[in-house]
Amino acid sequence: MKRILHLIALAVLGLFLQSCNSEEKGEKEKSGALAANAAERVYVAPGEHDEYYGFFSGGFSGQLSVYGLPSGRLLKVIPVFSQDAEKGYGYNEETKAMLNTSFGFVPWGDSHHPDISQTKGELDGRWVFINENNTPRIARIDLTTFETTEIIEVPNSAGNHSSSFVTENTEYVVAGTRFAVPSPQKDMPISEMKGNFKGPLTFISVHPETGRMNIEFQIAMPGFNYDLSHPGRNKSHGWFFFTTYNTEEAHSLLEVNASQNDKDYIAAINWKKIEEYVKNGGGEKIKAKYAHNVFDEHTQTATTTMKEEVVSVNPTDVPGAIYFLPIPKSPHGCDVDPSGEYIVGAGKLSADLTIHSFSKMLKAIEEENYAGEAYGVPVLDFEAVRAGSVKQAGLGPLHTEFDGKGNAYTTFFISSEVVKWKLDTWEVVDRKPTYYSVGHLMIPGGNSRKPFGKYLVAMNKITKDRYLPTGPEVNHSAQLYDISGEKMELLLDFPTVGEPHYAAGIEASIVKENSKKIYKLDENEHEHAVKNESEARVERNGNEVHVYMTMIRSHFAPDNIEGIKVGDKVYFHVTNLEQDYDVPHGIAMIGANTSEQLIMPGGTKTFIWEPKREGVWPFYCTDFCSALHQEMQGYVRVSAKNSNVPLTWGLGED
Amino acid sequence: MKRILHLIALAVLGLFLQSCNSEEKGEKEKSGALAANAAERVYVAPGEHDEYYGFFSGGFSGQLSVYGLPSGRLLKVIPVFSQDAEKGYGYNEETKAMLNTSFGFVPWGDSHHPDISQTKGELDGRWVFINENNTPRIARIDLTTFETTEIIEVPNSAGNHSSSFVTENTEYVVAGTRFAVPSPQKDMPISEMKGNFKGPLTFISVHPETGRMNIEFQIAMPGFNYDLSHPGRNKSHGWFFFTTYNTEEAHSLLEVNASQNDKDYIAAINWKKIEEYVKNGGGEKIKAKYAHNVFDEHTQTATTTMKEEVVSVNPTDVPGAIYFLPIPKSPHGCDVDPSGEYIVGAGKLSADLTIHSFSKMLKAIEEENYAGEAYGVPVLDFEAVRAGSVKQAGLGPLHTEFDGKGNAYTTFFISSEVVKWKLDTWEVVDRKPTYYSVGHLMIPGGNSRKPFGKYLVAMNKITKDRYLPTGPEVNHSAQLYDISGEKMELLLDFPTVGEPHYAAGIEASIVKENSKKIYKLDENEHEHAVKNESEARVERNGNEVHVYMTMIRSHFAPDNIEGIKVGDKVYFHVTNLEQDYDVPHGIAMIGANTSEQLIMPGGTKTFIWEPKREGVWPFYCTDFCSALHQEMQGYVRVSAKNSNVPLTWGLGED
Repeated sequence: MKRILHLIALAVLGLFLQSCNSEEKGEKEKSGALAANAAERVYVAPGEHDEYYGFFSGGFSGQLSVYGLPSGRLLKVIPVFSQDAEKGYGYNEETKAMLNTSFGFVPWGDSHHPDISQTKGELDGRWVFINENNTPRIARIDLTTFETTEIIEVPNSAGNHSSSFVTENTEYVVAGTRFAVPSPQKDMPISEMKGNFKGPLTFISVHPETGRMNIEFQIAMPGFNYDLSHPGRNKSHGWFFFTTYNTEEAHSLLEVNASQNDKDYIAAINWKKIEEYVKNGGGEKIKAKYAHNVFDEHTQTATTTMKEEVVSVNPTDVPGAIYFLPIPKSPHGCDVDPSGEYIVGAGKLSADLTIHSFSKMLKAIEEENYAGEAYGVPVLDFEAVRAGSVKQAGLGPLHTEFDGKGNAYTTFFISSEVVKWKLDTWEVVDRKPTYYSVGHLMIPGGNSRKPFGKYLVAMNKITKDRYLPTGPEVNHSAQLYDISGEKMELLLDFPTVGEPHYAAGIEASIVKENSKKIYKLDENEHEHAVKNESEARVERNGNEVHVYMTMIRSHFAPDNIEGIKVGDKVYFHVTNLEQDYDVPHGIAMIGANTSEQLIMPGGTKTFIWEPKREGVWPFYCTDFCSALHQEMQGYVRVSAKNSNVPLTWGLGED
Repeated sequence: MKRILHLIALAVLGLFLQSCNSEEKGEKEKSGALAANAAERVYVAPGEHDEYYGFFSGGFSGQLSVYGLPSGRLLKVIPVFSQDAEKGYGYNEETKAMLNTSFGFVPWGDSHHPDISQTKGELDGRWVFINENNTPRIARIDLTTFETTEIIEVPNSAGNHSSSFVTENTEYVVAGTRFAVPSPQKDMPISEMKGNFKGPLTFISVHPETGRMNIEFQIAMPGFNYDLSHPGRNKSHGWFFFTTYNTEEAHSLLEVNASQNDKDYIAAINWKKIEEYVKNGGGEKIKAKYAHNVFDEHTQTATTTMKEEVVSVNPTDVPGAIYFLPIPKSPHGCDVDPSGEYIVGAGKLSADLTIHSFSKMLKAIEEENYAGEAYGVPVLDFEAVRAGSVKQAGLGPLHTEFDGKGNAYTTFFISSEVVKWKLDTWEVVDRKPTYYSVGHLMIPGGNSRKPFGKYLVAMNKITKDRYLPTGPEVNHSAQLYDISGEKMELLLDFPTVGEPHYAAGIEASIVKENSKKIYKLDENEHEHAVKNESEARVERNGNEVHVYMTMIRSHFAPDNIEGIKVGDKVYFHVTNLEQDYDVPHGIAMIGANTSEQLIMPGGTKTFIWEPKREGVWPFYCTDFCSALHQEMQGYVRVSAKNSNVPLTWGLGED
């Protein structure tokens, strides 16, 4: 009871600290003193380019946002797990299969942790992976097109939070289970959770050339909450680390009941050992319903394959593969330094940070230096694996990143600050306030063997008065710090769309040269593409009508259609014939029950229109494309169901 | 034929000019020389606020974006005409009625021209109006909550482009018809367009206290394309001006066939005269199916009323109310200077700008100085109404705004520049390149009697290489110029979401003090609100289950529910009990077929979950709300359809 009160007091303190008013802010600001020439250091002059790409998750928006750094400018929002009316994603016939799941079509998601593909532990800029937390999925975004090209569902799990982090050659992207569940799912009393629910961890291989994902195996871990994870790298490559909380296995009022144990665990997984075990026929095939959605770049169309089973591995069946490392006070973040030696576990209700040593861990395993076991998994002795602690560093530590120069940077949610400290000596070097209550932080490449180490972005959970007010709902806020010197320097606040839960950054030069400018028309293998105006046409098949349409500055072909009837289902297959960079056209049809179609040069999109009323209905181009853009329009004549107006279409006759 | 070739040549020239490569850019940049200290002049230090709000339309996104100026930071995206997964807008039970139309539920729109409400010709900062172009509608956004509170459909019209501009006391917000259509709609051959289609202009009154909109009358104008409009102000208050193109009434290949006439028109409408005519019983009630959607701030719920008729006025029935003013070369923009004397018509295929005089117009009307008539509407003599011309100012003039100091600023799409010129003398004072191909421009208040006159924002249609590349699709780009001196100074490029077709800006101080921080719980009259935890409960009614749920840091009540069955339709009515600024909570339910619910303090939202599989399914908070946010979760146990597990729910028992 005393401990509960203590925890509640700590939480209340946190809330108190968050609700700083303007006066406090003034004082804080002084201590967080703004860098000299901050303006010039974040300014990217018109026509010049930012130095880094920042890929920020959209959190509850389900998307991925691309920001330029240091300017903080939003370059693009890439639709991933949610419908997007702007681009027609998830509405048009080509992309709606991307949102299929074993639960049916799910129009939105909750995206959390982007991670950029790596080769030899360094960012290679080929793909961004990102997890969906709610209906567990992982997506892959292609960085030549900046489009989502694959989404795989993660079966038998729930709250896919400790995800989607990649191993150092992108061998695997990993998914976890934050909410222990019956696995496979079944009807059972919630109160029987303890010992019966599971926390499967899922290892998804990534094809080295195509990037195509495949679920290789799941590990049926005990029913704890697997919160965050990090691959080993460098010397610890081959291992993966997951923080757990709620090792109490409480199922109600977790804010009290999941904070009972003094220590929870980091699970250390030797995935190479398990991979080998599975390759040799180990594990058991279990029921696992999940969707695998692939967007084919040639046909420009997504398809869904429903799958039925996965290989499940029982942790105790692979001796020497899985251990628990104790971490005090409900750990949240789990981070590994560039050398692979240090594993940082942030006990979110603690003032201290615990750092474990990979070498000590190996030694403790060899010496069987166990403090006990949990469901058959050995728990290593805390002191035997501990490298050190950063003492009284702040309140509510969450996440840590690295600059590659021997420094670590940890966010503290409750005391609302970023703290810089030294690896090896654990001494605090600097601290800067954040506004307010920082969650994740991101150093471009800070997640790899070679961090770029120039900037740090704090992603804050509370915004309040930082920007002009916009009613009860305000955008989340990010802050950019220069970390090239001994002391961190705050340069810029910039608001962000969605909840930028986490981000991944990369030097622009690695990505920009590979960015495609158009889709080549002669590589367009879309089933319904029309590659020149002479092929434009309209075909009727019962009450289904297919319009094969082209668009080019500044007209549609056909631009007038007659003979459509009330009750028809009209498919518009529209191809943009342009082959110049940045000449999209759009098409809008009055009252269309599908979304906006914005079509890039060389691309084809399909939308459906089901006319309900007789009349002459216009369509038009929605993207200002030339001086005669306003003239880019057409009409569809809709007649009664039983009319005998023949199907005709025209272009240019007047 | 010669004219056609000429026009095509002009268009081709435009395309050529657009495709400037980097070398050309280098040179242009020099001539557009960047202002000294540009960095410092656009930098808004952490914790400081921008000077202006900029409300940018989302174009094909259908939304409204709020930017801070001069920083160019995106403060918020307000969902208006499209579903938004981030906020649940258009998905949840409270807001989905906002997207109802006479065509059914339309999940997206194409928003074009925001306009801020005015009192005595000055911006009062109460509401923003914005039009939907595709399925004609006008929305009203409340600037205390920054939320869309009303959408009214505009019947019998198509391509609602010359909209949504307000008169100087917000008496009316106006809508037009860009694509002539049968009005009311009927089945007829497209080729019989000429003389038979109409171009209705719609006058919608705005209640001076509540802002509530009502269609007062439509004017059944000839079937031209009504492209843009502007209210008279000051001396011309009581009139409204609309540009027209395609006075040829061509219906195919408009890029050639709508460019035949040397002059099209500005329609000048004396709306006070027509208002009086209608008040005295004038006009005819005609069939007009349209939806009127209102979001009630007390019940926090939108409802739709379907309406059936409008009053239509025949232009020739109100003598002295409507005239046509000739404008050369397919005019696009229509702008009135702050004094109300000058009406600028931009012939988009012209190198000249034509400025008409309101006084001369009145005189020409008095003297019946007509050049002819069109469908019974007098056409005034061009020279009799012309105040002057800006000669050879650039290629492809589109839009003009004013600084209130006697200067006008016009965008030129083809020659890609902004040109500053003097009212009265028509001399060009300055020109600056834009990158690339500017459409609208915006000066905060530039649309009113009192422009703020410090900045100008150019909204460019082509982006190409201005930012780090993001695949074939790149965001649109805006540019900020300082116009406080004699010469314009380019300060900043910033990318924008959607197509910022047009924008409206206002000094921040007018709006910020009225911005609400929370919804007061004791004013929450939502039908299913629960105002404290003790009222939280679950009720079954056949296969419909209603969960009355609360959320507060950091738990749900109830947090565990049993007795739900496959095939149930479960309504979650969720109330956020917080009463502090910026403490939203979210809720996500695995596989939910509705969207994200993000709920502001004091707010209530409802989503539907239809469980398809037995199991124990978690839900959780999606907005990081406290140090124990990760603990804010619960489970729903789903049993077979015929199971007899009783309906129970709990909180805090373990």
